[in-house]
Amino acid sequence: MLTQDIAKALAARLDGDGTIEIERLVHPAQARGPADLALAVSAGAAALLANCPAQAVVVSASRPVPPGSFRAVIAIDEGRMALATLTALFDPGPVRDKGVHPTAVVAADAVLGEGISVGAYAVIGAGSRIGAGTSILPQVTVGANVSIGADCMLHAGVRIGDRVIVGDRVIIHANAVVGSDGFSFAPDLNSPEGFKPGVKVTRVHSLGNVEIGDDVEIGACTTIDRSTLEVTRIGRGTKIDNHVHIGHNVTIGESCILCGMVGIAGSVTIGDRVRLAGGVGVGDHVTIGDEAAVAAGSGVATNVPARTFVSGYPALPHQRSLENFQYLGRAKRLHAKVDEIAARLALLEKK
Amino acid sequence: MLTQDIAKALAARLDGDGTIEIERLVHPAQARGPADLALAVSAGAAALLANCPAQAVVVSASRPVPPGSFRAVIAIDEGRMALATLTALFDPGPVRDKGVHPTAVVAADAVLGEGISVGAYAVIGAGSRIGAGTSILPQVTVGANVSIGADCMLHAGVRIGDRVIVGDRVIIHANAVVGSDGFSFAPDLNSPEGFKPGVKVTRVHSLGNVEIGDDVEIGACTTIDRSTLEVTRIGRGTKIDNHVHIGHNVTIGESCILCGMVGIAGSVTIGDRVRLAGGVGVGDHVTIGDEAAVAAGSGVATNVPARTFVSGYPALPHQRSLENFQYLGRAKRLHAKVDEIAARLALLEKK
Amino acid sequence: MLTQDIAKALAARLDGDGTIEIERLVHPAQARGPADLALAVSAGAAALLANCPAQAVVVSASRPVPPGSFRAVIAIDEGRMALATLTALFDPGPVRDKGVHPTAVVAADAVLGEGISVGAYAVIGAGSRIGAGTSILPQVTVGANVSIGADCMLHAGVRIGDRVIVGDRVIIHANAVVGSDGFSFAPDLNSPEGFKPGVKVTRVHSLGNVEIGDDVEIGACTTIDRSTLEVTRIGRGTKIDNHVHIGHNVTIGESCILCGMVGIAGSVTIGDRVRLAGGVGVGDHVTIGDEAAVAAGSGVATNVPARTFVSGYPALPHQRSLENFQYLGRAKRLHAKVDEIAARLALLEKK
Repeated sequence: MLTQDIAKALAARLDGDGTIEIERLVHPAQARGPADLALAVSAGAAALLANCPAQAVVVSASRPVPPGSFRAVIAIDEGRMALATLTALFDPGPVRDKGVHPTAVVAADAVLGEGISVGAYAVIGAGSRIGAGTSILPQVTVGANVSIGADCMLHAGVRIGDRVIVGDRVIIHANAVVGSDGFSFAPDLNSPEGFKPGVKVTRVHSLGNVEIGDDVEIGACTTIDRSTLEVTRIGRGTKIDNHVHIGHNVTIGESCILCGMVGIAGSVTIGDRVRLAGGVGVGDHVTIGDEAAVAAGSGVATNVPARTFVSGYPALPHQRSLENFQYLGRAKRLHAKVDEIAARLALLEKK
Repeated sequence: MLTQDIAKALAARLDGDGTIEIERLVHPAQARGPADLALAVSAGAAALLANCPAQAVVVSASRPVPPGSFRAVIAIDEGRMALATLTALFDPGPVRDKGVHPTAVVAADAVLGEGISVGAYAVIGAGSRIGAGTSILPQVTVGANVSIGADCMLHAGVRIGDRVIVGDRVIIHANAVVGSDGFSFAPDLNSPEGFKPGVKVTRVHSLGNVEIGDDVEIGACTTIDRSTLEVTRIGRGTKIDNHVHIGHNVTIGESCILCGMVGIAGSVTIGDRVRLAGGVGVGDHVTIGDEAAVAAGSGVATNVPARTFVSGYPALPHQRSLENFQYLGRAKRLHAKVDEIAARLALLEKK
Repeated sequence: MLTQDIAKALAARLDGDGTIEIERLVHPAQARGPADLALAVSAGAAALLANCPAQAVVVSASRPVPPGSFRAVIAIDEGRMALATLTALFDPGPVRDKGVHPTAVVAADAVLGEGISVGAYAVIGAGSRIGAGTSILPQVTVGANVSIGADCMLHAGVRIGDRVIVGDRVIIHANAVVGSDGFSFAPDLNSPEGFKPGVKVTRVHSLGNVEIGDDVEIGACTTIDRSTLEVTRIGRGTKIDNHVHIGHNVTIGESCILCGMVGIAGSVTIGDRVRLAGGVGVGDHVTIGDEAAVAAGSGVATNVPARTFVSGYPALPHQRSLENFQYLGRAKRLHAKVDEIAARLALLEKK
C-alpha cells in the first residue's frame, strides 16, 4: 500500500513521498527497512524515532518531527482511531484454508455461502447455514440448525450449540462457547429448601436460544448460556473480552464493552453503550441502564440507573464508594481523636 | 405428549381438554399454535396470556385464568419444580450421531456400552470404558484408562485426563477440562524462598486423580485439577457452573451449588449442600461446613462453620459484613459529629 | 527404581534395604504392596503409617519411625522440594502416541524435531517448527509460522495462534489459548466518547505477537493475547495457573507465580519473582516491581513498588489494608463511644 493511500485512509496530512510501498505497520523499535511504516504517536514511541530505520512514519500533529528526517511523514490529530484504521489496513487475519478442508465434516444439508473457509476437522451440523465470506478455523464445532451470518471469523475450538443465531461480521475467539445450557435448578439456588438434608437438586433444562447481533466480538474462553424458554441476546456492536460468563435469559444492548472476566448471572438486563470493566460481577435479575459504567472488580447487586458510574463491592455510585474508601483510610486518626476527646472530657468532668 | 400426561407428570390439576398433543413448551410471547404449551407462572408471563395463540397453558393456581380462555389449563402450586419437570419433558438434548461416528478414534481396547453416541473427531484413549447410553459429542478427548458411567453427556471439546473416574448421569459442558495438573511448586508459593533472586520454581507433579460422583453437572470452560497423590473429589449431585476453577486435592461434598467463576484453591474441603454464589474465591486448605452459604464475590480466607452464611472480602458472618458496610456508609456523618463535639469541648474548656 | 536411587535423588539418608524396586509413589492411605513408596512427611500422613502395607517410606527426619517398622526408610529434611523431586521421578506424563498420528494434519513445510509426539486430529500450520521431544496431544491447533521449542507438552485442545514463539520445556494445559487478539477499541474504553449514542466501537487489530520463555507453565483455559504492534512476553520460569487472562502488550518477568483466575489488563508490566495470588485483578498500564506480592482477590489499580506486599480492593500496602479492616470491625463500638461522649458533653454544657 502506498503512503499516499494510507494518508488518505486516515484523512491525514502527508509530508514527503506519497509513493513508498508499505508492507508492515511497526513500532519504531521494530522497524527494519523501507517497507515499514513506523507508528510513533505516543511520546515514548516518538522518542525512538531518532534511530529508526523506517523511511515513513505516522506521528502526532502536536509532536512534529524535524523536516527532512523521513521520506514520508503522516501527521494525525487523534491517535486512537488512527490506530484502529492502520491496524485494520495491515491485518491479514489468521492464515486459513481456501474453501472447505477435506477433513471437515459438513452435514449434507448444511448451506455454505460463497467464499467461505472451513478448516481441518471442523464439524458443521445438520440444517446449519454459514454466510458468505465467513471463516471457520480448525476444530470448530457448529451444532445443528445454527445460523451464522456473512464475513464472520470463528477461531479454532469455538463451540456453537444447536439453533444459535449469529449475525454478520461477528468474531469469536478460540475455545469460546455459545449456547451452553443455563445454570438453573429447583429448588431455587437461594431457597432454604436447597440446604435440607436429602434435597435432590433438579435441573431446569434450557430449551431457549442465544442470538448474537452483527459486529459483535466474543473473547477466547468466553461462555454464553442459552435461555430457559426465551433468548439470551447480545446486541449489535457489543464487544466481549476473554473469560466472560453470560448466564441464561440475559439481554445485553448495543455497543457495550464487557472486559475480561466479567460475570453476568441469569436474567440480567443491560442497556446500550454500557461499560463493564474487568472482573465485574452482576447479580441475577439486575438491570443496568443505558450508558452506565461499572469500575473494575465491582460487584453489582442492585439496579444501576442509566448514565451512572458505580464502583465497589457492593457497587455504589462511584463518588460514594470513593468517599467510603477515603473515610476508611482516616479511621485510625478518628479513633485517636475520639480517645483524646474522651480524655479531655473526663478531665473537665473531674473539675 | 398429551395435556393429560403433562398434568400427570406435574401432579397438577387439568381443566379442559386432556387430549391436546403438545410439541413445544414456550414462553407466552413465543407461542404460535395449538401444539404449543404456554408456561405463564410468573406475573409477567401471565400478563401476556390475553393475546396468546396457545390453546394449552400452565398457570399458577394462585393466578387462575378466566374460565374458557383456553382449551386446557394446568394449574400448579410451586413454579420452580414444575419448570424443572416441564423443561425435562420437552428437552430433546443436543442433536447427536447414533453410534460411533466413523471419524472417531477409539482405542482398540476401549469398552463402549450399549446405545452410546460418539461424535466426529472424538478421541477415546486406551483402556477407557464408557457406560451405556452415554453421549460423547464431537471433538471430545477422553484420555487413557478413564472410566465414564452410564447416561452421561459430554459436550463438544471436553477434555478428560488419563485415569479420571466419572459417575452416571454426569453432564459436562463444552470445553470443560477434568484432570488437568495441579498448580503446585517448590518452594511453597507463599514461602519467602520464592522471592529470592535466582530461585528455580520447581513443579510438584500431579500423580493423583479426579473422581466425579453421579448426577454431577460441570459447566463450560470449567477446570478440575487432579490431586498430587490422592483424589480430587466432587460429590454426588453437586452442580458446577461455567468458568469454575477447582484446584488439586479438593474435596467437595454432595448436592452443592458452585455458581459461575467460583475459584477453589488447593486442598480445600467443602461439605454437603454448600452454596457458593458467583465469583466466590476460597483460599487454600480452608474447610467449609455442611449447608454453609457464601454470598457472591466473597473471598473466603478462613474456615466456615456448618450452616453459616458468610459474605464480604475477607468473608465474615453475613450480619457482621452487613454491619461493617452500613457503618462505613455512616463514616462521613461520624467525622462531622466528632468535629462538632471537639469544637463544643474546646469551648467548654475555655470557660 | 531402587530405594537407594530414590534416596540418592533426594540427597537423603536411607535406613534399611536399598534394593527394593519401587513402582509407585503413594499416600500412605493408598499403599497396597511392596512396590509402593509411601510418602508420609506431614503429621497427618505419618499417623497413617501404623497400618500401612508399604515396605518403603519417606518420612521427615524430625518425625522418625520406630526402627524396624519398614524395610526401607528415607528421611528428608525439607518436604516441599522432596515432593517435587519424588513426583517428577514417578510421573509418566499423559499417555500419548509415538510419532505423528496418521490423522494429524501437518503442513508440508512444517519442521518436526526428533522424538516428537503429535496426537490424533492435531493440526500444525504452514511454516511452523516443533522442537525435539515435544508432545502435542490430540486436537491441538498450532497456527502458521509458529515456533515451539524442545521438550514441551501441549495438552489436548490447546490453541496456538500464528507466529507465536514458545521456548523449551513449556507445559500448556488443556484448552488454553496463546495468541488470541487483544481487546482494544477506538474510542478508548474509558473515554466519554464511548458512551455517545450512535458511537461505533471500532476494533484495534492485533498485529503483534506473544513470546513464551523457557520452562513456563500455562494452565487450563488460560488465555494470552497478542500485542497490538509489539510482543506480549512471559519470562522464563514463570508459572501460570488455570483461567488466567493476560491482556495485550503485557510483559511478565521471570519466575513469577500467577494463581488461578488472575486477570491482567492491557499494557501491564510485571517484574521478576512476583507472586499474584488467586483472583487478583491488575488494571491497565500498571507496573508491579520485582519480588512484589499481591494477596488473593485484590484489585491492583496503581503501581506496586518492588518487594512490596499489597492486598485489598483497591490494593494498598498489606499493613494498611489490614488496619483498615480492623478499624472497620471496631466502627460499631466507636459509634457507641461517640454517642456516649456526646451525651456526657451535653450534660456538662447544661451545668
